[in-house]
Amino acid sequence: MQRLKIQYLLKEDVSALIGTTICVKGWVRTKRGNKNVAFIALNDGSIIHNIQIVADPAKFEEELKHITTGACIGVEGKLVESQGSGQAVEIQAENIVIYGEADPNTYPLQKKGHSMEFLREIGHLRPRTNTFGAVMRMRHEMAYAIHTFFHNKGFYYFHTPLITASDCEGAGEMFQVTTMDLNNIPKKEDGSVDYEQDFFGKQTALTVSGQLEGELGATALGAIYTFGPTFRAENSNTPRHLAEFWMVEPEMAFYDLDDLTALEEEFIKFLVKWALDNCKEDLEFLNNMIDKGLIERLKSVINTDFVRLPYTEGIKILEEAVAKGHKFEFPVSWGVDLASEHERFLVEEHFKKPVIMIDYPKEIKAFYMKQNDDGKTVQGTDVLFPQIGEIIGGSVREESYDKLMTRITELNIPMKDMWWYLDTRRYGSCPHAGFGLGFERLMLFVTGMANIRDVIPFPRTPKTAEF
Amino acid sequence: MQRLKIQYLLKEDVSALIGTTICVKGWVRTKRGNKNVAFIALNDGSIIHNIQIVADPAKFEEELKHITTGACIGVEGKLVESQGSGQAVEIQAENIVIYGEADPNTYPLQKKGHSMEFLREIGHLRPRTNTFGAVMRMRHEMAYAIHTFFHNKGFYYFHTPLITASDCEGAGEMFQVTTMDLNNIPKKEDGSVDYEQDFFGKQTALTVSGQLEGELGATALGAIYTFGPTFRAENSNTPRHLAEFWMVEPEMAFYDLDDLTALEEEFIKFLVKWALDNCKEDLEFLNNMIDKGLIERLKSVINTDFVRLPYTEGIKILEEAVAKGHKFEFPVSWGVDLASEHERFLVEEHFKKPVIMIDYPKEIKAFYMKQNDDGKTVQGTDVLFPQIGEIIGGSVREESYDKLMTRITELNIPMKDMWWYLDTRRYGSCPHAGFGLGFERLMLFVTGMANIRDVIPFPRTPKTAEF
Repeated sequence: MQRLKIQYLLKEDVSALIGTTICVKGWVRTKRGNKNVAFIALNDGSIIHNIQIVADPAKFEEELKHITTGACIGVEGKLVESQGSGQAVEIQAENIVIYGEADPNTYPLQKKGHSMEFLREIGHLRPRTNTFGAVMRMRHEMAYAIHTFFHNKGFYYFHTPLITASDCEGAGEMFQVTTMDLNNIPKKEDGSVDYEQDFFGKQTALTVSGQLEGELGATALGAIYTFGPTFRAENSNTPRHLAEFWMVEPEMAFYDLDDLTALEEEFIKFLVKWALDNCKEDLEFLNNMIDKGLIERLKSVINTDFVRLPYTEGIKILEEAVAKGHKFEFPVSWGVDLASEHERFLVEEHFKKPVIMIDYPKEIKAFYMKQNDDGKTVQGTDVLFPQIGEIIGGSVREESYDKLMTRITELNIPMKDMWWYLDTRRYGSCPHAGFGLGFERLMLFVTGMANIRDVIPFPRTPKTAEF
Repeated sequence: MQRLKIQYLLKEDVSALIGTTICVKGWVRTKRGNKNVAFIALNDGSIIHNIQIVADPAKFEEELKHITTGACIGVEGKLVESQGSGQAVEIQAENIVIYGEADPNTYPLQKKGHSMEFLREIGHLRPRTNTFGAVMRMRHEMAYAIHTFFHNKGFYYFHTPLITASDCEGAGEMFQVTTMDLNNIPKKEDGSVDYEQDFFGKQTALTVSGQLEGELGATALGAIYTFGPTFRAENSNTPRHLAEFWMVEPEMAFYDLDDLTALEEEFIKFLVKWALDNCKEDLEFLNNMIDKGLIERLKSVINTDFVRLPYTEGIKILEEAVAKGHKFEFPVSWGVDLASEHERFLVEEHFKKPVIMIDYPKEIKAFYMKQNDDGKTVQGTDVLFPQIGEIIGGSVREESYDKLMTRITELNIPMKDMWWYLDTRRYGSCPHAGFGLGFERLMLFVTGMANIRDVIPFPRTPKTAEF
């Protein structure tokens, strides 16, 4: 008999099925009842809600012994209107198959609530909980929304490499990739490591960004985006850092600063609206259980215009606040890299809406950002959000070969292995821009979860690579 | 003035724009003409076709000097019906901006044809060619089709980790990931590497498959898929192997062998039909320039039922062919792992259609495959295609804890770090199945390209990690 998903039974109009025999399969969340009737709450992962199975204890005496929290069962039975289970329909069991038991003495996910820390230790089972089921379904929806957004705009998904030989020298925050025997590293005559004997014949590492290769794509295909794993070997044990995370990096030929900030705003609003439109049940659960202000905050983002704030104006606002007596831990003056407290003041207290800060001092931004005529600032953009801070970082790219080389020389950036990047400016150089969105930062915002380890299935952090 | 994409001008009905002034931006493919008129073929990467710009040499004397193959320009001009350029419309230039020149003495992509080997050396520029533009746009379309297929079926995109501590011991074909100083590896007292001092506190490597973690997802969310980079440190310099490639791995609770093969067939047909429906211009180009049988072969796949062929029957067919005088290089008998020549005989000569081979001898398949009652075979499936051979490998998974453990013990598989995987069979075990599709193998099939290095932007192979 064809299995029906519980999502279908609880979300669609199934009035035509009332009175017919159907089949569901899933995992038992709870069992309760008395001598005359047993109620089984069954979940199959397709939706946060359970369907109620009503079983006659006399008929299913043997089966009910094995039906405990976590057990996997299949049920055939009559679909009926529910008498009060909170759902519109329930199933009167006619046949029950036990696929897999879950010993109540050892199964770690019993009915009682669990701490996030404990659930991280059983990361292999936590997707079976309501909270992580909701987060993982939303993670899918957000990923699909990203692909849909760019596809509909004519951007091409461009797979930049994860193993890279660029940027490896002196990059302390990169993971090295090697097939050499670490017990017996091949050495050159001078005693240094002989990378020529490694798999790729040179030193390689895991990418920290696909941007530079993304620019190769944009300057050929017009507009591309990457969406894939990215790595930082930073020894940061914080609720906001992962060693392996997913990043979205669009790159667009012929975009100027206005085009760029417009795309950034449109993109985030599209994603947040997608969550509100497509993740109703999961959002309601997270709003109730994790963060009471979640849905309201999401709605406020899509209904407000983001502020465009030149860095220089932002500094003025912060300096005025200090003059009026506002205390910041870190000093504020033109040229400083803003601290989280400064960004939060601007977003949460001054403007009370998302802020896209632009035109940063060139000294605090990357070498490839387009230089403004003032000689002091570059066309970088940070999108600053309530609670989570920077969610997007982007810039117009410097398309002038001479200006770019001057900056590279000033900053003493090793470009030996970067000839291919410079070729984009040597041959048919074009104005272009791009940005990066940390996917897990987005997930924190749309789920209300507090720790980045809880919005990715299997987090990698210092000293942790379980599962 | 708002730029219009060339794809829009050449694919949509733009009759309402005829006679108006529009703006396009892109890269010059060719310039030709005479004293009275200049024709510029402009491409912006949005479509394989160029739009023709007609310019008055007297008016644009200075600009035309800088307009050579590869230069980046913006053009404002009147859209007119074309007099014979092969396209419906062309543009009479009113204003031309040069964004970036391309010195014809050094720019490597001149009009003449280039070998695939040469284009690999300039992998940073090859997306600007017709062939690689077509392949990269199709790569996007296939990726988007994959997400669309699974989203519409209620599968959740599940991000399995790339850095893994499982399966590292003795896995010679994995890339190690480390932050240790290779010039000064920390050692334990016994002289061996002290992985406790490494970033993750243990030995880690890049994943060769997300399947095992995918099973954790499927046994919680019901149906998931992965789609991401996967790694093999195999020293294989062949047209079919990459060290870094993209893999799609769906995993489904409550699927049996029939469900699995039905999904495999539906999936591939959906993807091939998507290519035919959505990549018309690029496919026509590739059919003309790369593989004259391409479009016909794609059509044949979607219009035929795939054969389900038990391994034992396949062996009989091959043995009969041998008896009738067919020569194979490798011997055929029950129990052997079929060679490519055997698979091709079945697919291309015997059945003349795709074959899904099932029920393989357990000795030649992985430990996790569901054991049949005959005690000899397992419910593995390989989807075999004309020309490219195996495009999908999958199986029903053994859901019985006892049977799985017996097999693990027989094969002496180290399961010390795999307790979490076994928990899926310990707690609420369910029938489930899944498969893996090598994305680049699919790309070879849908593009007709011959070398796997030419269907991924930046291939990683032994001794090669450029760009």
